[in-house]
Amino acid sequence: MTYQSPSRDMQFVLQELLQVPAMLASCGKPEFDAETIDQVLTAASQFASKVIAPLNELGDEHGCSMPAPGVVQTPPGFKEAYDEFTKNGWHGLACSPEHGGQGFPSVVENAVYEILGGANMAWSSYPGMSHATYVNVATNGSPEQKALYLPKIASGEWAGTMCLTEPNAGTDLGLMRTRAVPQADGSYLITGSKIFISGGEQDLTDNIMHLVLARMPDAPPGVKGISLFIVPKFLPDAHGVAGARNAVVCGSIEHKLGIHGNSTCTINFDGATGWLLGAANKGLAGMFVQMNHMRVLVGVIAIGLMESAYQKALAYAKERLQGRISGTRASGENADPIIGHADVRRMLLTQKANIEGARALALWTAQLSDLQRIHPDAAKREEAVELLGLLTPLVKALSSDLAVESTLLAMQVLGGHGYIRENGVEQHLRDVRIVGLYEGTNGVQSMDLLGRKVLGDGGRQMGKFLDMAAAFTETCSPRKAMREFAEPLAQLIADVRQLTSELVGTSADDPHAAGAAAVPYLRLVGHLALAWTWARMAEVALKHSESTDSIYASKIATARFYYQRLLPQTAALCGEIRAGSSALMEPAIDLF
Amino acid sequence: MTYQSPSRDMQFVLQELLQVPAMLASCGKPEFDAETIDQVLTAASQFASKVIAPLNELGDEHGCSMPAPGVVQTPPGFKEAYDEFTKNGWHGLACSPEHGGQGFPSVVENAVYEILGGANMAWSSYPGMSHATYVNVATNGSPEQKALYLPKIASGEWAGTMCLTEPNAGTDLGLMRTRAVPQADGSYLITGSKIFISGGEQDLTDNIMHLVLARMPDAPPGVKGISLFIVPKFLPDAHGVAGARNAVVCGSIEHKLGIHGNSTCTINFDGATGWLLGAANKGLAGMFVQMNHMRVLVGVIAIGLMESAYQKALAYAKERLQGRISGTRASGENADPIIGHADVRRMLLTQKANIEGARALALWTAQLSDLQRIHPDAAKREEAVELLGLLTPLVKALSSDLAVESTLLAMQVLGGHGYIRENGVEQHLRDVRIVGLYEGTNGVQSMDLLGRKVLGDGGRQMGKFLDMAAAFTETCSPRKAMREFAEPLAQLIADVRQLTSELVGTSADDPHAAGAAAVPYLRLVGHLALAWTWARMAEVALKHSESTDSIYASKIATARFYYQRLLPQTAALCGEIRAGSSALMEPAIDLF
Repeated sequence: MTYQSPSRDMQFVLQELLQVPAMLASCGKPEFDAETIDQVLTAASQFASKVIAPLNELGDEHGCSMPAPGVVQTPPGFKEAYDEFTKNGWHGLACSPEHGGQGFPSVVENAVYEILGGANMAWSSYPGMSHATYVNVATNGSPEQKALYLPKIASGEWAGTMCLTEPNAGTDLGLMRTRAVPQADGSYLITGSKIFISGGEQDLTDNIMHLVLARMPDAPPGVKGISLFIVPKFLPDAHGVAGARNAVVCGSIEHKLGIHGNSTCTINFDGATGWLLGAANKGLAGMFVQMNHMRVLVGVIAIGLMESAYQKALAYAKERLQGRISGTRASGENADPIIGHADVRRMLLTQKANIEGARALALWTAQLSDLQRIHPDAAKREEAVELLGLLTPLVKALSSDLAVESTLLAMQVLGGHGYIRENGVEQHLRDVRIVGLYEGTNGVQSMDLLGRKVLGDGGRQMGKFLDMAAAFTETCSPRKAMREFAEPLAQLIADVRQLTSELVGTSADDPHAAGAAAVPYLRLVGHLALAWTWARMAEVALKHSESTDSIYASKIATARFYYQRLLPQTAALCGEIRAGSSALMEPAIDLF
Repeated sequence: MTYQSPSRDMQFVLQELLQVPAMLASCGKPEFDAETIDQVLTAASQFASKVIAPLNELGDEHGCSMPAPGVVQTPPGFKEAYDEFTKNGWHGLACSPEHGGQGFPSVVENAVYEILGGANMAWSSYPGMSHATYVNVATNGSPEQKALYLPKIASGEWAGTMCLTEPNAGTDLGLMRTRAVPQADGSYLITGSKIFISGGEQDLTDNIMHLVLARMPDAPPGVKGISLFIVPKFLPDAHGVAGARNAVVCGSIEHKLGIHGNSTCTINFDGATGWLLGAANKGLAGMFVQMNHMRVLVGVIAIGLMESAYQKALAYAKERLQGRISGTRASGENADPIIGHADVRRMLLTQKANIEGARALALWTAQLSDLQRIHPDAAKREEAVELLGLLTPLVKALSSDLAVESTLLAMQVLGGHGYIRENGVEQHLRDVRIVGLYEGTNGVQSMDLLGRKVLGDGGRQMGKFLDMAAAFTETCSPRKAMREFAEPLAQLIADVRQLTSELVGTSADDPHAAGAAAVPYLRLVGHLALAWTWARMAEVALKHSESTDSIYASKIATARFYYQRLLPQTAALCGEIRAGSSALMEPAIDLF
């Protein structure tokens, strides 16, 4: 079955829950009203289902190939789809009008990328990564660099990549060896090898702008000696006309579990010409602008894939007749649709709760990235910056973990048929697994959340986040219909507050306390964020309890399912976190 | 890296924990002493690492193909490996000496299959399935059928398959349509199509004995009208010489997520000649002998795969230098092995606890299948039958779920490198995913456990199981060193007893209570079984606390990890179960 964009649910989240049009109007952007946003999402849906969804299975089967050394061929149809995307101006959706873009907010862009990713993750990662390089250069570039590169990225004529990882330097970028030697003309000669470069080489665009981390000769050791460079595949003149080939070559493409249609390349820089982007030795911070953008983006793409897997599981559960359900026996068939079985419903509702909860949370996060940029009140911008810092690793890690778990459940709904290629769920599982590994593994996200963001300021910012959630529960508590959500949420907020304060204490004495707690802590905070989000969605839905639009009843039913059947997981997480680091750190290595 | 069989751990489980040689001696089988069992496991390890492990990646890449209609080619080298397995008499390991076998107990056979599966699951499934058909015919066959078929299966000259599923009949076999029309000579003509037939066609053996479920013309509807038939690919004469080709043809092979080297076939029976196996209309019960054998077998194969993935993750964690660990900085390198990180240890120890706990539990279950057959005391045999009934669905579902979770963690330890084919973990994930889906989905296992085995007798048998576990905790409680295990275990036993009694109550009024609880209940009982197993292993290890053999310290450390960091999951499961069925069953279908 073909992927269908979850249009009504996105409308619910963007307009009813997050009130995006009103927010944008209050930030001086009244042109992005509800109708305009709807039009964009409708157009994205059509592009997704008509153009790239049909290439999804094909792209997986063909993968990328190297017909000649250094040349990468994307799967059949990818180039044509890319050209259509370009022709319709999609690359510029969230780019600034001064570079030829349409200036849409990030929250709309992320909704669009959920749709694109759900239809074809491998394909969508090409423009997704390119746009992240736009964000990087727009933030860190000089006026000349912006003028030269950004219109080319916004138009889609050129693509961009992010070159960080080396064979011996992944999580620990301080170990990287790629060198940048300054030249008399102000450029640098870049030499080194980068691996795992998404879209590092392809046949979709005329030129590729590689954003490369490298060390200058006199740089301090470790992460404080890393600078960021623009290294184009073809060297442009001042008018943006691509000229001579630069010494940047794709050495090989990886064979991967999934996203076969997205080229993952080894890129060799052999004295390639590059230009410093941002300040010398501040390259890691510069790259993190892009990285943080990507973390939210891959989170929403993961949500798109679990949505796609859910749609297949739901269709199967409604069609597949197997066994008798107590008290139904409606049809003339000698078996009932398996959606009548409690355990099949458990699997479907888990997916639905994961998807819709994660979607609302991710789009709220994207909204914060708009608020930090465009809100007229500086205090509100600062508040958004801080919240965004907490939520970015959460959205990335939580969405990708939930996506793997949900896609495994979607496959389980199909039984043995889920294991067969032609039913499509197995590709979703292979594709989505990457999200927990790249743009910083989920372990790295967890340490970013707990180690840096929470313990880094003694729990202050987390305390503010908990205060916001607690304030919400207080506004709910007088309403009887909200009690089933507000009471357990208030309890969870109190538990997380207590646990956070315990962790602030233990981490002062135990250097391994944060590492031992990080992953379950992120999941626990994830539950808190989802529980809060579900309560907010239930609150909106309860206002429409008389509506004939079934989304409101669906939201209330799913919120109830989440609170009753998934929220109990927090008890396990608290227990695991409180166990501390000793069982992890005491065993000698030879006992493993 | 090449798979290494976990020889020392298997010795620990078989000899020190389960005391298999003593058990066998007390059952009149003193010939299977510790030395003999060790020799078999050593030989299996050598075969696994030298012959089939090198074919694992190759088999995945090549897969099975159909060079001509009805003809299936297994991957290069599979036939030669099969011949070597045959030549060395492995097929007959657990077959009766009267059919040319060696009569080894099931517990040894299962240990061997863990090793084979860990080295190459796709290959191992061919002889594994064949041996399951041996068990079927040995139980259900007439003396003539046994004499004709069993020596051929025991020698490996012929293989066997299990033909149950049809396009419209999977979990609900009552819907099957394959027909068996009796002939004057006592044979039957079988007509119908079966799907998902593992090893349904191959190029490894001279003949294939299909065991096929079908309906006779006058059969009652549903599962009470299913009979079991032997349908050979080539019709044998009374001396076991294969003659004319039977009307059994492989229509196609499936393209699957994993186990590419194992042919999964559509098999068409077009008036094929077959013979009734066992009593008419009792075919499902007859097939369940084989099915239950397979459920334990695929459980141990799943354990082999997670062991294999763990070995890769552990090796990587010891070698990969990335980041600085507080307080270590031992080497001259500018980074430390990632095994020093608490979160990497969390992932490794979770795998280790899952693997070693599941292994001990599965081998205990296999031991029960020996005891039910050979114990001299009828009461002990009956006790083993009952326990085996509880533990079979548990071993199958728990091992396969833990295997997927563990393999995902193994991949996570490798970070982005885990997503790349050449590192091997991604194949393990693709291969192992099938185990939760076939031989009855894990949802079916859960309903077998809770619905049939637990609620079916009002909780009596589960009560006996809990009594056994409780008796163990009482023997431990005087010993101070055992308290950290015995106390939480006693609490868990009490919790499960209470919850089981609640479920007996609620399921009397609510037809969906069992279905709503089944999957978390199986996992909860799985935790109880694992916690009990880990406490038993710790008890054995504590007797050797002065030993220089590191396995004892390792067992104690892993038991402690399990109790501190994984056992808290039971709190979540209890909460989920107590939430009942309403959140699942109330939503109308259009709200999904």
